Amino acid sequence: MVNINELTLEEKATLTSGADAWHLTGVESKGIPGYMITDGPHGLRKMKQSTGASGLYDAVPSTCFPPAAGLANSWNPELAREVGVAMGEECVQEKVAVILGPGVNIKRNPLGGRCFEYWSEDPVLAGRLPAALIEGVQSQGVGTSLKHFAANNQETDRMRVSARITERALREIYLAAFEYIVKHAKPWTMMCSYNQINGVFSSENQWLLTTVLRDEWGYDGIVMSDWGAVHDRAASVAAGLNLEMPPSNTDDDVVIAIREGRLDERQLDRMAQGMLDLLEKTRPAMERDYTFDVAAHHEIARRAARESIVLLKNDCGILPLAKDEKIAVIGEFARTPRYQGGGSSHINPTRMVSFLDALAERGVVTDFAPGFTLDDAKQDGALTGEAVAVAQNADKVVMFLGLPDSAESEGYDRTDIDLPAKQIEVLHAVSVVNPNVVVVLSNGAVVSVRDWQSDAKGLLEAWLLGQAGGEAIADVLYGDVDATGRLSETIPLDIEDNPSMVNFPGGEGYVDYGEGIFVGYRYYDSRDLEVAYPFGYGLSYTAFEIGDAKATVTGPTSATVSAVVTNIGDREGSQVVQVYVAPNHDSSAVRPCHELKAFAKVDLKPGESKTVEFDLDDRAFAYWSERYEDWHVEAGDYTIEFASSSRDVNDTVFITLDGDGKALHLTDMSTVKEWLDDPLGSAIFKARATEFEQDGSTFWPEDEVNAMFFLTVPLNSITTFVGPKGRWFKESVLADYKAALIR
Amino acid sequence: MVNINELTLEEKATLTSGADAWHLTGVESKGIPGYMITDGPHGLRKMKQSTGASGLYDAVPSTCFPPAAGLANSWNPELAREVGVAMGEECVQEKVAVILGPGVNIKRNPLGGRCFEYWSEDPVLAGRLPAALIEGVQSQGVGTSLKHFAANNQETDRMRVSARITERALREIYLAAFEYIVKHAKPWTMMCSYNQINGVFSSENQWLLTTVLRDEWGYDGIVMSDWGAVHDRAASVAAGLNLEMPPSNTDDDVVIAIREGRLDERQLDRMAQGMLDLLEKTRPAMERDYTFDVAAHHEIARRAARESIVLLKNDCGILPLAKDEKIAVIGEFARTPRYQGGGSSHINPTRMVSFLDALAERGVVTDFAPGFTLDDAKQDGALTGEAVAVAQNADKVVMFLGLPDSAESEGYDRTDIDLPAKQIEVLHAVSVVNPNVVVVLSNGAVVSVRDWQSDAKGLLEAWLLGQAGGEAIADVLYGDVDATGRLSETIPLDIEDNPSMVNFPGGEGYVDYGEGIFVGYRYYDSRDLEVAYPFGYGLSYTAFEIGDAKATVTGPTSATVSAVVTNIGDREGSQVVQVYVAPNHDSSAVRPCHELKAFAKVDLKPGESKTVEFDLDDRAFAYWSERYEDWHVEAGDYTIEFASSSRDVNDTVFITLDGDGKALHLTDMSTVKEWLDDPLGSAIFKARATEFEQDGSTFWPEDEVNAMFFLTVPLNSITTFVGPKGRWFKESVLADYKAALIR
Repeated sequence: MVNINELTLEEKATLTSGADAWHLTGVESKGIPGYMITDGPHGLRKMKQSTGASGLYDAVPSTCFPPAAGLANSWNPELAREVGVAMGEECVQEKVAVILGPGVNIKRNPLGGRCFEYWSEDPVLAGRLPAALIEGVQSQGVGTSLKHFAANNQETDRMRVSARITERALREIYLAAFEYIVKHAKPWTMMCSYNQINGVFSSENQWLLTTVLRDEWGYDGIVMSDWGAVHDRAASVAAGLNLEMPPSNTDDDVVIAIREGRLDERQLDRMAQGMLDLLEKTRPAMERDYTFDVAAHHEIARRAARESIVLLKNDCGILPLAKDEKIAVIGEFARTPRYQGGGSSHINPTRMVSFLDALAERGVVTDFAPGFTLDDAKQDGALTGEAVAVAQNADKVVMFLGLPDSAESEGYDRTDIDLPAKQIEVLHAVSVVNPNVVVVLSNGAVVSVRDWQSDAKGLLEAWLLGQAGGEAIADVLYGDVDATGRLSETIPLDIEDNPSMVNFPGGEGYVDYGEGIFVGYRYYDSRDLEVAYPFGYGLSYTAFEIGDAKATVTGPTSATVSAVVTNIGDREGSQVVQVYVAPNHDSSAVRPCHELKAFAKVDLKPGESKTVEFDLDDRAFAYWSERYEDWHVEAGDYTIEFASSSRDVNDTVFITLDGDGKALHLTDMSTVKEWLDDPLGSAIFKARATEFEQDGSTFWPEDEVNAMFFLTVPLNSITTFVGPKGRWFKESVLADYKAALIR
Repeated sequence: MVNINELTLEEKATLTSGADAWHLTGVESKGIPGYMITDGPHGLRKMKQSTGASGLYDAVPSTCFPPAAGLANSWNPELAREVGVAMGEECVQEKVAVILGPGVNIKRNPLGGRCFEYWSEDPVLAGRLPAALIEGVQSQGVGTSLKHFAANNQETDRMRVSARITERALREIYLAAFEYIVKHAKPWTMMCSYNQINGVFSSENQWLLTTVLRDEWGYDGIVMSDWGAVHDRAASVAAGLNLEMPPSNTDDDVVIAIREGRLDERQLDRMAQGMLDLLEKTRPAMERDYTFDVAAHHEIARRAARESIVLLKNDCGILPLAKDEKIAVIGEFARTPRYQGGGSSHINPTRMVSFLDALAERGVVTDFAPGFTLDDAKQDGALTGEAVAVAQNADKVVMFLGLPDSAESEGYDRTDIDLPAKQIEVLHAVSVVNPNVVVVLSNGAVVSVRDWQSDAKGLLEAWLLGQAGGEAIADVLYGDVDATGRLSETIPLDIEDNPSMVNFPGGEGYVDYGEGIFVGYRYYDSRDLEVAYPFGYGLSYTAFEIGDAKATVTGPTSATVSAVVTNIGDREGSQVVQVYVAPNHDSSAVRPCHELKAFAKVDLKPGESKTVEFDLDDRAFAYWSERYEDWHVEAGDYTIEFASSSRDVNDTVFITLDGDGKALHLTDMSTVKEWLDDPLGSAIFKARATEFEQDGSTFWPEDEVNAMFFLTVPLNSITTFVGPKGRWFKESVLADYKAALIR
């Protein structure tokens, strides 16, 4: 163990920036090398050459697991953990101390260019799955880097834009997944975002990196910068940033700031100590020789991909496909899969199995037509003709549509959520000659289905599925496994329905989060707005019932709830039981109609029932109160909803909670109603009112309208109604109240 | 003239609060009495007893003109001026020095309980009409009080709530009407609102009352408090509040604050001087004896009411009614008109003519059935039966529907925009037996028409029309005059479509204006969301063409535009030509698709054409730039739309403006693209890049993806791409740029 006190000021400063773009700074004098760190997050992106951040796509092969936008639909933390373990093993083999990811930013708007790397529009789902993945990776002795902390929800001007957000929206939506993960999975590192939050760069945000992250959440790992996110090294160190990546030659700035007294050396010590701790923590794994099982990891990728697929539509039971049906496969994506997004997360896979490859593996003979090209070229009539021809001769058509690589990437946002028009054109032509069309979508972020889904009897949202996607799609299409994915985000009818549209992506260097906490289904459901497919939605090849909802209140702010889920179909399958909590009382704050608070994926044989039980703690009922600057559970009724999507509530149970006891303190700005609602306040108020009237003056308004207004008046403004003597009344009431509290 | 220096500190402090609830404090020693002030704003509400604010409905008779929610639909400033002159005359007769109003708060949400007192969802319309009204009143030597300054857009918790709004939304939406009026009509007084803006009470808001109002806009009148809005007298005086109303016995607080050095006596002098100036200004009128012409004012009220009516629907030309048609009149409102809203604006009218009275005046004999009661009682089957019976025997049915008094008032917000269910029930029963139904609506704020308007062939939005409403409705129904009103606010299909719904009315003491500048049609039109009737909409009994749009650019930020409007129908009528400006270039800021910037109401005989010309100044093209903290007209293309509603653009003309020349200053936080876009910056940047590469280093990214990212990188973060030597590059470029600017 290196003692921080043995290091010079310069050595400590050096520790707080990388050795180069992909290496930590070691302590040579103590024989600790600067280990390598690499991009993630759905597989290892270890650069072949290690200088500069360019050459994004030149990495050693590694297993490409489904990106987050896919895996999130599994609603299966155990599966995420398995993926994590596998990635951890690959890190150990490749001597990578930290894999950068996962990214858990909330999908505020489907146009966000990096949605494919993120998990959900809901912070509970975006917390539970990555937490398990992180635990998996770190169980192998290597670290993860939870990113991008925080409020990095768009690519437009991402290196500077100031996200202007209320503290409530930050706490309930944009920080909540980070908070859950920090508390439960304890990631060894975190990565701050490029952007500003309310005018302060994340890399210099002491409130974010120290007050909230460390003091409130108890984080004890290190925080590194996103690549190039540091603008003032000394300010970053002061705020709580341990590591600048890549190095920018500014270690001297830290030294000078300390020498000039602008920065406390003890703060540098803390930041540098974090780096020493990280080096020590990763050292055993870095000194271990290990070779991972390429084939076994491919199988994990395949299982993960299967559960990432969401069956959206299955009219007339067109799926699963039967082995003896003659299938036509149309769409370039069947041959040239789109299996991951562009940017820093781009993996060089160990294997790559297209859907056509997967069919060949199964011995299925099909006709294939590419249907369209993946470039921007106009539709080629010959390709349409060929597609129609193969469709005519088939029992069913499996048609691959999706977004080409160029449509979504780190670095820029989309401007619409439409599929390329030429693909829809081919689909339509095909559906005219063969009505039995199953569409398989390949896309990292939501695409609109409204205008063309009537051309398909079957619809599979296959997202980006990693290197085993082709096999997984075949597994689900042929019904080897149930379709068990559920949407981790709403598919709106129209991107204009998204509540952030009027502000997204902002301009002049800022973006307003005007929709506040009303993100995703919290908005669509609270408004009861029609959507294409709701959050949590997904069909199965079997059928389920959820019922017998029960609840036991276990404390003033907690309850244990349960329900029974039954497979009422005729084959094995999995249902995701979703628990939403709806405040069912007059709240002091604006609240969404309901919020996901727990879920469980349950495997069931035909006829089988299982009871699922959930402990709901205070956070299941709380909102962030700007009044108390704290989480607040109000006393009152709550509805617990057991649901198979945010729009399909199968059973409910009602509970009444005492709440956390936080109560309004009466002041001169409390209204007459607030005074009268408080037992002590009411007695004092009424006694003084009686005294007021002793000389014949009128205190209480006589007519109904004035009486109603009167209740809304702050004590301070009571003179408006009762005249100048109101000042005596006000002072008397306040004095009595204070005296009573002291007594 | 009293000299402020002749007064004692106590006397000056006394001047800055009222003598009682409805009187200013005079200077007895100088023989200046404390004149009376009364509520408005659509007529005089002079209380019979003058102590306390209670007894809202006990006032001396005065002419009840159409409330703002009606008059706004006239789009006729000259008419508003006439109403103002008449109100001014009534003030002189009644010895009222200041009439409180008009209120020009923006109708952010139709649920706002005081919408009936306000003008529009658009700040241009909400500025032009009240400005004329104020000029009218003040031409009589008495003052107005422009209110509620500012951002008082709801009744819920109105005395305390903090309206959290961006400066841009404040400037473009919530302050803009005030600004126009202050600059053009110079109201003698203004009234600050109860609420807080971004955490500061309006009564203590120095930015609002001094920096913006006086320093920027040049206001030289006085600001009084809303009744009970002052919480800290000294803070209010310091912020720029001249007058506390009603007095709360706190003059001593001002004196003590000055003696203790917490308040500058010169600030009290300024505030008290304002009060002296006001007393002097109103004195001549207060000393003049005058009797207004009750009948003439009633006629003005009638003309104003006519132009306030909006014909929304006229299927099969069901209107105008013919004299010989047998008409059935249904609906209690025909007998018991709802003609104004509740609260401080409630007038005791000089006359009251119901629709039934108006028909009797015309000698029209009709059957009448009340149809429903105005209370909350359930529908009485006998009333429905009676209504159906009279409907069966008539050629046409005129059916009065609307909101009862209790539905909308100062003091509380609505929770929906529905008509009472029982009224719709009766309408439906009536329409079944007689398809020729004309509905006349009486309501202060928008009601939903979606679910029942198919039961009516004709639909008249008659708002609240003041005391001559019955006659005005008859005038329009019988076609004595054209239907010339145009909607001053959008009628949405569903209140949930309103962009403020997720935040309105807030909780825990605050309300977020998350929709920013996207209020009213700015939202609906930018989203292309279907509405029931768009802003600016209204039918006429004749037809118009608008064409021959022309534009001349008159400067870098201004243009003169014109169009020709023609009456192509066969009777006399009036069209409102609406001019919207649409930015037609890639803007640095998020902007609405178009905004109303000018309008003109044009009377035309059949076949007649008139050219309407508008001077559009910089504000017609500007947005509030938070980057420059100023209005900003960008260089680029703009479309000028000549329209008959926000959704019905009849002709357009394109212009290109040079803009105001404000340009981004290059800094270390400017992106590579911003450096390359600037002529000087580009030369410096490229020269240093060439130097960078002289030792064989790579500066410019080679692949396309990286090249695209590179452009978005701030100079400060360039090390991320080019390595640690980037620091030398950055410093060199900045130094060169600074040197070049100095040279």
